[in-house]
Amino acid sequence: MTEPAPYVYHAQVRWSDADIMGHVNHARYLSLFEDARMAMLSESPAGLAGAPGDRGYIAAHLSIDYRYPATFRPGLALRVDTTIGHLGTTSWTFDQRMSDGETLVALCRCVLVGYSYATGSKRVLGDDERAYWQRYRGAG
Amino acid sequence: MTEPAPYVYHAQVRWSDADIMGHVNHARYLSLFEDARMAMLSESPAGLAGAPGDRGYIAAHLSIDYRYPATFRPGLALRVDTTIGHLGTTSWTFDQRMSDGETLVALCRCVLVGYSYATGSKRVLGDDERAYWQRYRGAG
Amino acid sequence: MTEPAPYVYHAQVRWSDADIMGHVNHARYLSLFEDARMAMLSESPAGLAGAPGDRGYIAAHLSIDYRYPATFRPGLALRVDTTIGHLGTTSWTFDQRMSDGETLVALCRCVLVGYSYATGSKRVLGDDERAYWQRYRGAG
Amino acid sequence: MTEPAPYVYHAQVRWSDADIMGHVNHARYLSLFEDARMAMLSESPAGLAGAPGDRGYIAAHLSIDYRYPATFRPGLALRVDTTIGHLGTTSWTFDQRMSDGETLVALCRCVLVGYSYATGSKRVLGDDERAYWQRYRGAG
Repeated sequence: MTEPAPYVYHAQVRWSDADIMGHVNHARYLSLFEDARMAMLSESPAGLAGAPGDRGYIAAHLSIDYRYPATFRPGLALRVDTTIGHLGTTSWTFDQRMSDGETLVALCRCVLVGYSYATGSKRVLGDDERAYWQRYRGAG
Repeated sequence: MTEPAPYVYHAQVRWSDADIMGHVNHARYLSLFEDARMAMLSESPAGLAGAPGDRGYIAAHLSIDYRYPATFRPGLALRVDTTIGHLGTTSWTFDQRMSDGETLVALCRCVLVGYSYATGSKRVLGDDERAYWQRYRGAG
Repeated sequence: MTEPAPYVYHAQVRWSDADIMGHVNHARYLSLFEDARMAMLSESPAGLAGAPGDRGYIAAHLSIDYRYPATFRPGLALRVDTTIGHLGTTSWTFDQRMSDGETLVALCRCVLVGYSYATGSKRVLGDDERAYWQRYRGAG
Repeated sequence: MTEPAPYVYHAQVRWSDADIMGHVNHARYLSLFEDARMAMLSESPAGLAGAPGDRGYIAAHLSIDYRYPATFRPGLALRVDTTIGHLGTTSWTFDQRMSDGETLVALCRCVLVGYSYATGSKRVLGDDERAYWQRYRGAG
């Protein structure tokens, strides 16, 4: 069985992302990982957060390993490869890898939980949603 | 033996921290937790990152649990309580708890590693640094 | 006739606001000035942007003079003094002054225009709104 | 005499740039305009701010007209066209135009002043710097 192809996103780095060391600030990586997830979510049956309908989701947990400090340079875009790990009834997990060329910059794992803004509680993922995420299912 | 008092920091929330839901963006919490750590670090023997000398440090790992979405309101300051968990030879761990009044908003664990910018590799923490962090040592 | 007292706001500076020079990034000042305006707006009859009702507003023009580069330090809060300059039928102007103790850091002028999200066009300010802003009317 | 071609930059918009209205926050535009300037500066004789040498520069004044509120969508990149207006002895002016396809989003004018970090005062621009900026000289 072949490994599914990850979703690939290229995130542009900004001058204002860098700290006094010239390194991309540790919190900013999360915004870059987030944009890769948002691109995937916007193509999913649930759509972007805030879209009409009631198939919301919220971040429940996130962990990140910092491997190499990216340094701002004009034109720098960090590549984010995303696969789906755990795919549960009400939640699912993104496994994300950020790289600058051959250099691994950071690894991120993020758990989203389906959330209904109408009821204010978690919701069961639809079959169409699960089918969508299944495509990016990795070994996790 | 009594539990040490945590370091308490109050982090002001900005209008520009909120997303389309009105919730503080998930990445921004890291900046608020960071500022609590920076306040502690600035009072430590190593001083602020970027300060003269060669007692640097870098974030190696961070994990965060999102418990309740904080919503922007003018005057909102989130309270961050920080204790030190693991205190090793070259690294140490911050256990952080963010709250809005009685409401627990998020929990963060962050591992910093001592780093020498002169040698480009990790460094052993000084006795004075370890003594400083020991004061905030929790049960972790 | 006495000059009206400005609205005073203290804006906390973050580690992640500083650039590679250690200076607060030039764009971040706008977020600090914005928070002073948002505090005033939240107490105004129109309320915060995004609040129920149809008394919206949008930024139309902004100019800023940078006088002295603020440098991050833990505990730094920049003081923002705001008065109202021009008070028109559909728009009004904030004159803002940011300082770090005795040091003038930046001056900002921002024009907001009343906007109806229902009609998608500008709107006339209510008498109660004008009366509110009149209180902070400076010489401008 | 023909008008010089502007410097063209495409700035990726992030989910975390949007406010509760879904609009790109008014301060974030400055970061996008900044990145266009930084790309130009990195190719200039002075290089990026913070680079070795003593040909620094600081922002002295900035004004921006907001014409149309850009709304986040995945894949959105705003185009920034930059020309140089005034080119003085110690300062120069960027005239910038941001657009989303045919829609004009914002106009920005930013004055940079040559600054020596060694002397802590403004400096005269070099002939090579002036020649570089002259290429992008518009009608301003």
